[in-house]
Amino acid sequence: MSDEYSTKGSYVTGGEFTRDTNYIQDRIVADASAEHYGHKDSHSKIGHPDAGLSEGAQLWPVEAGRYHLVAARACPWANRTLIVRRLLGLEDALSIGLPGPTHDARSWTFDLDPEGKDPVLGTERVQENYFKRFADYPRGITVPAIVDIPTGAVVTNDYPQITWDMSTQWKEFHREGAPDLIAHDQLDEMLPLIKRIFTEVNNGVYRAGFAGDQKSYDDAYDRLFTTLDYLEERLSTRRFLMGDYITEADVRLFTTLARFDPVYHGHFKANRNKLIDMPNLWGYARDLFQTPGFGDTIDFEQIKAHYYVVHEDINPTGIIPKGPDLANWLEAPDREELAEHGPFLNGTAPGEVRAEERVQAGHNPLYPA
Amino acid sequence: MSDEYSTKGSYVTGGEFTRDTNYIQDRIVADASAEHYGHKDSHSKIGHPDAGLSEGAQLWPVEAGRYHLVAARACPWANRTLIVRRLLGLEDALSIGLPGPTHDARSWTFDLDPEGKDPVLGTERVQENYFKRFADYPRGITVPAIVDIPTGAVVTNDYPQITWDMSTQWKEFHREGAPDLIAHDQLDEMLPLIKRIFTEVNNGVYRAGFAGDQKSYDDAYDRLFTTLDYLEERLSTRRFLMGDYITEADVRLFTTLARFDPVYHGHFKANRNKLIDMPNLWGYARDLFQTPGFGDTIDFEQIKAHYYVVHEDINPTGIIPKGPDLANWLEAPDREELAEHGPFLNGTAPGEVRAEERVQAGHNPLYPA
Repeated sequence: MSDEYSTKGSYVTGGEFTRDTNYIQDRIVADASAEHYGHKDSHSKIGHPDAGLSEGAQLWPVEAGRYHLVAARACPWANRTLIVRRLLGLEDALSIGLPGPTHDARSWTFDLDPEGKDPVLGTERVQENYFKRFADYPRGITVPAIVDIPTGAVVTNDYPQITWDMSTQWKEFHREGAPDLIAHDQLDEMLPLIKRIFTEVNNGVYRAGFAGDQKSYDDAYDRLFTTLDYLEERLSTRRFLMGDYITEADVRLFTTLARFDPVYHGHFKANRNKLIDMPNLWGYARDLFQTPGFGDTIDFEQIKAHYYVVHEDINPTGIIPKGPDLANWLEAPDREELAEHGPFLNGTAPGEVRAEERVQAGHNPLYPA
Repeated sequence: MSDEYSTKGSYVTGGEFTRDTNYIQDRIVADASAEHYGHKDSHSKIGHPDAGLSEGAQLWPVEAGRYHLVAARACPWANRTLIVRRLLGLEDALSIGLPGPTHDARSWTFDLDPEGKDPVLGTERVQENYFKRFADYPRGITVPAIVDIPTGAVVTNDYPQITWDMSTQWKEFHREGAPDLIAHDQLDEMLPLIKRIFTEVNNGVYRAGFAGDQKSYDDAYDRLFTTLDYLEERLSTRRFLMGDYITEADVRLFTTLARFDPVYHGHFKANRNKLIDMPNLWGYARDLFQTPGFGDTIDFEQIKAHYYVVHEDINPTGIIPKGPDLANWLEAPDREELAEHGPFLNGTAPGEVRAEERVQAGHNPLYPA
């Protein structure tokens, strides 16, 4: 068995794509006294709102202004953190760095920033911040990554845990009206759902697109659409995945759905049908897109540029498709009648995106060119 | 300027894809006395129902059983000839050879036939038949090609002219009820339309897919969808392109539309929208598909295999997408009310496909697995 690691945080075994799920599993927590958290046996791939601490991992204290969230808009895993940060109102407590959409074999760079350096970290490449943590860091240089600003070292890139911890550990800095995304009373139902969404959909599209042979691709395709059909049915009676209001599960599904027609349908051959051909999922995706905190984090141009340029193995010409037409993301979702509550239950929607964090005009139908 | 010829009958100049339109321009005609045909100045790219003879080209006599039409089901240009042969009932007069969908740098092979040889020609590769005509044939080994069975030599591969000549020169062998596809009284309108369909749509998808740089692609995409929008509008009041009944123009548009969602949308990045998102074009395409002579020539599996396997530059993995779901080609088109006549005016629909020419079950929703 030969495993080839790559900077994408993934490798291929035989013909099948396998995501590298060995992350820097430190956590940033409300009380950094280890006893409070206990031990976590293994990496769950989806994180847990009440997770313990993995073997060898450290706890870091929640602190406003101390950390910098590096999260490329193009990346679906990073996109989750941008959404949750907005929903919870963590903008003042946790600054963000936004690498550009395309990168070379050494991974993400701050090429969109003045002089090509993140203004807070002063680095050109996210790799530098990984190396400040571990000089010989051997695994994928991935985003999202939370960096300790004083040392410039990556604290964690454990994306499945990062958003849970934003909800449960950063409460002190939540905005007034921040929604509860955890739905603790529904956790027994939500965690298996989140796991299924991860393995079959979030990662399922990658398994289809990076398949090394026809059989691996065919299997991934079947698994992906089996679960999309299940979700289509589930959303016929529920406005959101867990019912009347938005939860972490919705954040996780949304970032894949937003990329489905622009990228995964063609580039990853996830092409039984487009998202727009599944009425409930498409209405649901638009509903979220038009909710503050979701659509306003989406940069369709960066998303397309990332996949079509970075994956030279799949798209050797590097040409970026002009399509699809994305104006339809603004069509009315008409799904309010499915719910008895507003989308944030007892919470409120986040306010306007601050000017310096707004997606570039023309890159999202919310912001016309 | 460096032009690189390929076996695909095309080359790239700068970043732009250019189709090689230098064909073997011999013609098979009703009366092979040259004076009747006169001289044709240049190759029109679309042929002409009353064309003359190009410089250096020869005339061959129409004769039942003498010629063999080599036409891969995968190829849109060859597909035209399979449709017209069916519509006109030329099955007895003109036999067919069907190369498989995938081929190597030496082009199309008879790999689907017993022992890998065309049963009539006895050759393994269409290239052999080109070399029997010109030992050092330097251009693309393309289909459709009509071969003189006694000598095994290619007579013509001038696909824009072949279908016109089937209509105008092979009349002696047309079936009873064969439709008039020429519409001579509308020729002034039809020829520019056919030319526009060729440059912007038939070849437009290739210009998008084979573009060598972003600008060439962007231009091709814009031109393609500009004309598709025009056709969408045109078909809002006409059942078929020229009005109430089927003409050569419909044959030429159909073979591209049939490949649009399965191949061109993703593989060639013609992805502003799918065909199924353009209601008139999609209803029109289904209307034709469900008309004998059209849909029964379509092998979606061969079509997908051809493009995704042969174009290693675009799809290095050679993985063939499982999608899209094609069952919707059988949905009712509901376009009869747009016309006062039947689709063949004074003619009739062709009968059943003969058993040995039927598309493989499972490769077309008309023939379930």
